[in-house]
Amino acid sequence: MPDSVETSPAYAAAVADLLGMLAYAELAACARLAADSDLAPTVSARVALARMAGAELAHHDLLAARIVELGADPEEVMAPYAEAFAAFHDRTRPSTWLEAVVKAYVGDGIAEDFGREIAAFADPRSREVIEGSLSDEARNAVLVELARAGMTADPQAVGRLALWGRRLHGEAISSAQAAAAERDGLTALLTGQFGGDGLDLARLGELFARLATRHTDRMAALGLDA
Amino acid sequence: MPDSVETSPAYAAAVADLLGMLAYAELAACARLAADSDLAPTVSARVALARMAGAELAHHDLLAARIVELGADPEEVMAPYAEAFAAFHDRTRPSTWLEAVVKAYVGDGIAEDFGREIAAFADPRSREVIEGSLSDEARNAVLVELARAGMTADPQAVGRLALWGRRLHGEAISSAQAAAAERDGLTALLTGQFGGDGLDLARLGELFARLATRHTDRMAALGLDA
Repeated sequence: MPDSVETSPAYAAAVADLLGMLAYAELAACARLAADSDLAPTVSARVALARMAGAELAHHDLLAARIVELGADPEEVMAPYAEAFAAFHDRTRPSTWLEAVVKAYVGDGIAEDFGREIAAFADPRSREVIEGSLSDEARNAVLVELARAGMTADPQAVGRLALWGRRLHGEAISSAQAAAAERDGLTALLTGQFGGDGLDLARLGELFARLATRHTDRMAALGLDA
Repeated sequence: MPDSVETSPAYAAAVADLLGMLAYAELAACARLAADSDLAPTVSARVALARMAGAELAHHDLLAARIVELGADPEEVMAPYAEAFAAFHDRTRPSTWLEAVVKAYVGDGIAEDFGREIAAFADPRSREVIEGSLSDEARNAVLVELARAGMTADPQAVGRLALWGRRLHGEAISSAQAAAAERDGLTALLTGQFGGDGLDLARLGELFARLATRHTDRMAALGLDA
C-alpha cells in the first residue's frame, strides 16, 4: 500500500469501514449463537455454544478497539451493516440443533475466510487485529465433534444437512457481497484506490473460488458433500 | 446449619442442587439476553446487552466451579431445571426492545432476589459464590437508563410496560416455585431438613412478600407502577 493509515485519513476511514463490517459480523454472530444454544440437547453442549458466543463478543471488542485507534466511531462504522447481517441470519435461522452446529461451523467459517481475504487490504496493525479475531482451531474441533455425534445419532439428518450447508454458502456469499458494497470507503479500499492490487472482476472470481474450496473442505470435515 | 458440606454428603448434594438451579438460570438468561440484543435500536445498546449476556455466562461458570468443588456434576444438577426455565422464557419472550430491557432488569432482578434468599440455606463458601454471581449495580443502572430513554422517546409504551412488568413478576414467581420443587434434595434443604429454620408456609409467604417489595422498587426505578 503506498499510503499508510497514519498519513492518509481517507485510507484510515476506509480501513475503519472494513473493521466495522467484521465487528458487526462478530456481534450478530454472538447473538445468534447464544440464541441457538436454546436448541442444545445437553447442558454441556449449551454451555459450549454460549462460550463460543462469548468469544465472538471478545473478537468484536478487539476490532472495535482498533476502530477507535483509527479515529473512527465503532457505532458509526458498524451500523450500516446491520441490515445485511440481520437479513442473513433471518434467512438462515436453524430449526434444529444440528442445523445450529453446522451453521456455527460452516457459516462462521465462510465469514472468517472472507475476513481473512479482505484483511489483505488493511494496514499491518489492523491486519494483525483481524488475524487475532479469528476463531481458534479448538472451537472448530468442538463443533465438528458435536455435528458428527449428532449425525451418528440421527443418520437421516445427513442429507438435509448437506442441503443446509449449500444454502448457508449461498446466503453467506451474497450477504458478503452486499455488505462489501455498503460503504464507499470500503469499496474504494477493495478496488485498490489506496494502492495495491484491487479486486477486479477476475480477482473477485478467484477470491470466491478460494472461499468455495475452503467451504468444501469444511463440509468434508463434517462428512457432508458440498 | 448443624451439618457442614464437608461432613454431610447429603447436604453437599442438596446445596449442589440449589447451585444447579442458579447456574441454569444464568445460562438460560445469557441465551435470551443475547438473542434479545437483536431488538436493540443502536449498535451500542446491542453491545451493552451482549456484554450483560457474557457476564451471565461468567456467573454460570462461578456457580459450576462450586458445584464441582461439592463433588457434583454440573450437567447432572443443572439439567432438571431446563424445562422450567425454557417455559418461563417462552412465556415471556419480548416483542419489542423496551420489553427486552424491562425483562433484563425486572426479570433477572426477581431471579437474583430469589437466589439471594435461598443462598441463606447454603454453606458459607457456596453463599459467597452465589453473592459473587449477582449482577452489579452498574449493569442495572445501564438498563434503567436504556428503559427510561426508550420510554421518553415512546411515552405510549409506558402503560403496556407496566402490564409487562406485572406479567414478568407473576411468571417469575411461579417458575421459581416450580423450579424449587424440582429436586428432592433442594426441597429438603429449603424446608430445613439439614438444620436451620426451614421455609414453612408462613416463611415462604414472607419471602415472596420481600420479593414483591423489591419488584415494586425496581418498577418505581423505571417510573412504572407495579
